[in-house]
Amino acid sequence: MTADPVTAAALADAEGFMARLSAFIAQPSVGADPSYAAGMEGARTFLESRLAEIGFTGLRRLTASDGSGQPAIYAEWLGAGQAPTLLVYGHYDVQPPDPLDLWHSAPFEATPRDARLYGRGVSDDKGPMMIAIEAMAAFLAVEGRLPVNVRLLLEGEEETGSPSLEPILVAHRDLLSADAVLSADGARWRADLVSINVGNRGICGFEITLRTAAKDLHSGRYGGVVPNALHEMAALVSSLRDGAGRIMVEGFFDGVADPTEAERAEIAAIPFGEYEVLDSIGSVAAGEPGYGFLERLWMRPTLDVNGLWGGYTGPGSKTVIPNMAHAKLTMRLVPVQDPQAVQDAVLHHLRRHCPPGAELSVTEDRGAAGAYAVPGDHPLLAAAEGALETVTGARPVRVRIGATLPLTEIVKRKLGIDTVMFSFSTADEDYHAPNEFLRMSAIDEGLAAWVAILRRVGRQSRTDYVRCRA
Amino acid sequence: MTADPVTAAALADAEGFMARLSAFIAQPSVGADPSYAAGMEGARTFLESRLAEIGFTGLRRLTASDGSGQPAIYAEWLGAGQAPTLLVYGHYDVQPPDPLDLWHSAPFEATPRDARLYGRGVSDDKGPMMIAIEAMAAFLAVEGRLPVNVRLLLEGEEETGSPSLEPILVAHRDLLSADAVLSADGARWRADLVSINVGNRGICGFEITLRTAAKDLHSGRYGGVVPNALHEMAALVSSLRDGAGRIMVEGFFDGVADPTEAERAEIAAIPFGEYEVLDSIGSVAAGEPGYGFLERLWMRPTLDVNGLWGGYTGPGSKTVIPNMAHAKLTMRLVPVQDPQAVQDAVLHHLRRHCPPGAELSVTEDRGAAGAYAVPGDHPLLAAAEGALETVTGARPVRVRIGATLPLTEIVKRKLGIDTVMFSFSTADEDYHAPNEFLRMSAIDEGLAAWVAILRRVGRQSRTDYVRCRA
Repeated sequence: MTADPVTAAALADAEGFMARLSAFIAQPSVGADPSYAAGMEGARTFLESRLAEIGFTGLRRLTASDGSGQPAIYAEWLGAGQAPTLLVYGHYDVQPPDPLDLWHSAPFEATPRDARLYGRGVSDDKGPMMIAIEAMAAFLAVEGRLPVNVRLLLEGEEETGSPSLEPILVAHRDLLSADAVLSADGARWRADLVSINVGNRGICGFEITLRTAAKDLHSGRYGGVVPNALHEMAALVSSLRDGAGRIMVEGFFDGVADPTEAERAEIAAIPFGEYEVLDSIGSVAAGEPGYGFLERLWMRPTLDVNGLWGGYTGPGSKTVIPNMAHAKLTMRLVPVQDPQAVQDAVLHHLRRHCPPGAELSVTEDRGAAGAYAVPGDHPLLAAAEGALETVTGARPVRVRIGATLPLTEIVKRKLGIDTVMFSFSTADEDYHAPNEFLRMSAIDEGLAAWVAILRRVGRQSRTDYVRCRA
Repeated sequence: MTADPVTAAALADAEGFMARLSAFIAQPSVGADPSYAAGMEGARTFLESRLAEIGFTGLRRLTASDGSGQPAIYAEWLGAGQAPTLLVYGHYDVQPPDPLDLWHSAPFEATPRDARLYGRGVSDDKGPMMIAIEAMAAFLAVEGRLPVNVRLLLEGEEETGSPSLEPILVAHRDLLSADAVLSADGARWRADLVSINVGNRGICGFEITLRTAAKDLHSGRYGGVVPNALHEMAALVSSLRDGAGRIMVEGFFDGVADPTEAERAEIAAIPFGEYEVLDSIGSVAAGEPGYGFLERLWMRPTLDVNGLWGGYTGPGSKTVIPNMAHAKLTMRLVPVQDPQAVQDAVLHHLRRHCPPGAELSVTEDRGAAGAYAVPGDHPLLAAAEGALETVTGARPVRVRIGATLPLTEIVKRKLGIDTVMFSFSTADEDYHAPNEFLRMSAIDEGLAAWVAILRRVGRQSRTDYVRCRA
């Protein structure tokens, strides 16, 4: 089946892999919600215990210098001498499981069904992270060593915008020094195409509250004479785009260039069935006019309301004029955009459009991350492409992702090194929705690919990496 | 103190009045909650026993023809020959007392404090109904007769939306035949102004759901390429009004006339501190341009979103593109509007503005009630105004209410007769909240006014009433 004894060993322990991943999924590590604090701690101790067991050392919990936030797990194996050093990244926090009633099986119970494994975090990022860890475990078990030096950084705040990641990199710069980052996060684009991610969008966002009166009012006593916070919020949200889908915020696109002809041609060459994709999600094309589907997704920034609420939302009817409305907004960014500047532009727009007598406040800031693209000639990208070709038999297509891996831009900016995304989840696995799943086939493929990439990097020269850092 | 011997007798028995009202309050007649069934029955037997005692006959319990729902109490005194017949209305059910811990005295123990009587139902509608009954009791005791024929209809479902009222009117049309309705329900506007309600707005409403995809989507994968249900709902809601606050639904105002110069002058003459009212609720004036505060509240229909929700609304941030958005809408109506036609017009507007690919459905219908206005020259209105002027020394100001009293429009439509609201509660008496109270001064004022109005109607000609029914 495979000529590589490490791969063979990794694949042979399918039962052990599944048991460990299930135990990991059973820890409800929802970082966004303080009521899941025990699940976060459970996920940390699970990782620490497994890493110690397989031979990693130097285990530590890293936080920003003020000690705030969810700690990241650090561990290392540095016995590969002059071979390159990789900072292997993953995250143990998961999205909230809501709405719970749409799950077909319990979100925190890994449940196999139809060649898929269901559970919150199984695809993002517990499954892919366990693939990386268990591939290294197989190396250590079979050969007693890894082909490269590895520093592990397993974050606990990825799903909440990685607010502590940058402070952690700054506070522990020496501990985390490496030649490149190999990320176990960052989903594969499609199940039917061998591809590699070479760039991702950034993100910023916040929550706003609009207040139009001191208390909820009865529409029999005040209907027609005072503002309704929900109507005002609806108008504010509507003002953000024009009818065609263009974002109307002044300054939002500052510095953003159109894709070049070469980029457009590269994107156009990718086999892609837009209508099949839309059909599969029961939706239709929408968004900024003048750009193709993949151009909008990869090369253009967005502005989305992720949550909006106010007034009476229970059963039946209540004749209330709500005095408060809330909205959560996020913006997806492209490489040239500064997250803070974009956030400021959107807030400025909202304040300028806020009606008289209404009070707008920012009630939460989700944190920000810049967009990123890996250099096309980076040695880790070459190793990744080679490993994927070895394992799948197909040369991977270079693609981007519309999502955000804050890590990529932060490590480039703070540590000066590049990142290759090498996750074995797939982007259609509902990882921010009910019934998140991981294709079972990704486990063996991922284990083999991680073994292959580590072997390839072990044969590369550190000099090529150092050149990229210049 | 008073020249009228009946009024004198009614006022002389203050102790008896208070004892009876307290016994009535002590029956916890919460119609919405089956666990209060004994209180409902207790309230009914209390009324039946008192009505028999004072000389009413024909006592019956009325239900819809299928026998469902809380029965209404019927009783009559028909010894006034050719004098007009009034259908006197009240209701014996009360709002739930929750939240109990906010009450300063037990809700079902009538408790005097600071010239107010506290207790659940004391203002809505047990106190005002007892005022009507005891005024009639005084007539029967002192003069052995009433000046008018009276049919009493004391409902048990007013606080739960009067679902059986229309079926009861239909099933007992002959028994309830009268020249007009005199209602002991329908609060006075303000404590500092002698006023009479001459109309109320109607209501209709529904809940809508907008769906833009088969499931929630991740903004990293679909941000910028598919519609967002919340943006589309925001645009839909915004489309309902223009920037200035005008309702933009085609057909919404069909037949609605502007207030006449006379109506405007009448409203303008009412002493009213708009800025004090706005200040007390921490809000500002808003709504349809070209109309004053009270014109908008009394003479203009409204369209309010009472609840709006979708996407992630928990703590933190979630980068979801919501596939569903929900909104609850209600419309307050003015007399010429047909609730069904208004509802259809709003739905037609929403469907017409629904973007391609989005699916709009009506997920709940709140039921409807038409608006009502008593004819300005109605003899019962004249009697009411005269009675109030006699008792208070001030000519009552004609006011309307922005809320809805389904009774008024239903009796007009089903029995063809008009209603005058002659309650002695006041709109600020917290009757749907903890610590409901009735101003003690309302009792004597109400007794005297009910004696006065019955005398006046007794001197009126039935012919004038019959003319109004034509």
